[in-house]
Amino acid sequence: MNMTTTTNATASQASVSESNRSRILQHLYHNGISSRAQIAQALGLTPAAITKITARLLEAGVIAETGDFEGSKNRRSIGLELDTTRFHVIGVKFARSLVQVGVFDLAGKPLSVQELPKVSENTIDESVALLHGIIDDLRRKDPAVVAVGMAVPGPYLRDVGRTAVVSSMQGWRKVNFLREFADDSPLPLFVEQDARAGALAQYLFDPNVTTDCLAYYLVGEGVGLGVIDHGALINGAQGAAAEIGHISIDIHGKPCDCGNVGCLERYCSTPAIHEMILEEGDLIPDATELSHTEASRRLFAMAKDGNARAERLVRQVARTVGFGCVTVFNAFNPQHIVIGDIVAEAGPMLLEEVRHVVDAHTIPELNTATTISLSSLPADAALNGAAAVAITQFLTNPSLFFELT
Amino acid sequence: MNMTTTTNATASQASVSESNRSRILQHLYHNGISSRAQIAQALGLTPAAITKITARLLEAGVIAETGDFEGSKNRRSIGLELDTTRFHVIGVKFARSLVQVGVFDLAGKPLSVQELPKVSENTIDESVALLHGIIDDLRRKDPAVVAVGMAVPGPYLRDVGRTAVVSSMQGWRKVNFLREFADDSPLPLFVEQDARAGALAQYLFDPNVTTDCLAYYLVGEGVGLGVIDHGALINGAQGAAAEIGHISIDIHGKPCDCGNVGCLERYCSTPAIHEMILEEGDLIPDATELSHTEASRRLFAMAKDGNARAERLVRQVARTVGFGCVTVFNAFNPQHIVIGDIVAEAGPMLLEEVRHVVDAHTIPELNTATTISLSSLPADAALNGAAAVAITQFLTNPSLFFELT
Repeated sequence: MNMTTTTNATASQASVSESNRSRILQHLYHNGISSRAQIAQALGLTPAAITKITARLLEAGVIAETGDFEGSKNRRSIGLELDTTRFHVIGVKFARSLVQVGVFDLAGKPLSVQELPKVSENTIDESVALLHGIIDDLRRKDPAVVAVGMAVPGPYLRDVGRTAVVSSMQGWRKVNFLREFADDSPLPLFVEQDARAGALAQYLFDPNVTTDCLAYYLVGEGVGLGVIDHGALINGAQGAAAEIGHISIDIHGKPCDCGNVGCLERYCSTPAIHEMILEEGDLIPDATELSHTEASRRLFAMAKDGNARAERLVRQVARTVGFGCVTVFNAFNPQHIVIGDIVAEAGPMLLEEVRHVVDAHTIPELNTATTISLSSLPADAALNGAAAVAITQFLTNPSLFFELT
Repeated sequence: MNMTTTTNATASQASVSESNRSRILQHLYHNGISSRAQIAQALGLTPAAITKITARLLEAGVIAETGDFEGSKNRRSIGLELDTTRFHVIGVKFARSLVQVGVFDLAGKPLSVQELPKVSENTIDESVALLHGIIDDLRRKDPAVVAVGMAVPGPYLRDVGRTAVVSSMQGWRKVNFLREFADDSPLPLFVEQDARAGALAQYLFDPNVTTDCLAYYLVGEGVGLGVIDHGALINGAQGAAAEIGHISIDIHGKPCDCGNVGCLERYCSTPAIHEMILEEGDLIPDATELSHTEASRRLFAMAKDGNARAERLVRQVARTVGFGCVTVFNAFNPQHIVIGDIVAEAGPMLLEEVRHVVDAHTIPELNTATTISLSSLPADAALNGAAAVAITQFLTNPSLFFELT
């Protein structure tokens, strides 16, 4: 028993060091160039501890000295900086028919992005095989790549590695992402539900996001939500929390693949929008030929050009997005809701209608304290999100990614 | 700047000690009698650290040695125990017309409980004044009382100290609980939303609750939810997260005091049940004379006695409670949902119907991994909850409550 105790005590010591390393990296990541004294003050660590930890991070090449910079009280001191270009990550976004792969630096800057051929229900296996080759290739060509992050549609069962429901393309349910990609991966590989990955991307990469109580509301081919509450993702027991797309807004409403009725996703996802367009008859004559995304984008463009029927449909969709927002207020009380993905491309018209619904239906004290905005990251924020999943791990568990002497 | 740094470093050192004290107290609270070696192993602390910290806790009288007990590998060692009888807390439950006050030991055992005269919209001030006297009196009579916990209806704005909406008794919104009770309190005093307080009570006091991913679903005069995700309450930016009562289950439904429509609370709270009974005409002839609670209890009793009309109403209410459960699954993915408060008194009939709805509408992988049960704590679990609020603070920030030499 003594040995176990000693091992645990050592493990605990190691985890304190790792935690301090992680806090220093996160501080530099979020605050930019800082002196050792500034870091010590911000984190409540002794200058001696800072000197010791930063020495090892400098040696490993993760952080760098920037030379003199002006600190507080006009004293000049040496700045430390997290070198976000030194390490790269691969991000992979799975979105039903669309699979994208990118290489990113630690600041979330895309260095390359590619798209796999369109996936259909019976070509999933081929796409998976192709993807293995692409990841392998990217990793060999770029030795700076240290990790892979993946964003998959939810509800994703985190411990199992499988998505429980993928409305309108259930074939993805067969794929166990952890077994398929993580188990034999030569690099650390992490999988997260797409909206949760998007929330991490907003938190890490978007300069307009300044709170640590944040909801990223993904409205696209699926509808999902990622919630960061006081700096930490809300996970739930199986990692399937915040499944806004399957929360019912109408218990007398349309049935959904998940078993529930009136799921939010049935009223404002791109498949739902496509359905509405088809029900409108001749609004978009070739609508049957288009993908859900193409049809939705066409509708948004027509509404912006002043087509009244198109505008009516967009506002109808926006009202449902708004009711989803009201649910987000009451369920998670975030300080900032960022709406992203394809439906956010409807732009100011969407946001205006969402705000009308929210103003009319939300508790005033919550409403006035909360910002709603459209994502300022690219529409494929979940791809940035996939990178953010890997970068979050890099910042949280740094010793997994580089040798510390 | 040096001074600030030193102060922060000291503060950080102090907070590490406090955190270790808290972890030891929580370990003893949840695991019962343990040897120093067992605690060291469970928490990954060195035996030397445990000896030092427990010595100070023994001196302060918070923990006690129990003499020899049988440890692992049949070795005899000295046990340590958190003496739950040594300190008491006062719990106060505000539930619209009902205000209750109790004194509890740290195990949640009630030592005394009293009820204030029934509160109406225009006697709130009197009740508050009366309550001040009662708390003062209890504190003077029992020097073991170290803290006061309060449970108030939500959505409660934690930093402000005020409840934002109290459907069917908006007068309570005028009361700022922090200013009214905490600011001049001679004892540490903590206020929490009632369902969240109930979740803490389930977590601390109910031996049937064994997970740290727990939702307490309060269905009574209001409908609320408290969610503990991996051991921590989900708060939201203003402390108003998990307001299940105001999540809409029907965007074409009945309007609610909060501004939303189709709020869950409008279909299964005791005021909603009372309304349904009145709409039934002669089912309970003197229903207009009864309080919401009395009317609901009468209905449950009639249903249990085999009255078919009453049973139909109870099952209708239960279905709505069930749809609320489905929302809890999708929003928070807990491992255990405990249904409590007055409506839970409908018993097995309610639970059966809830399970039907959940089985039919929840993602199977989530459903099979989740337990739903009725609270085994008394119906006024929010009063236990108020005590739990204070006890949680005692276990988390022990040095607020006793002198450490």
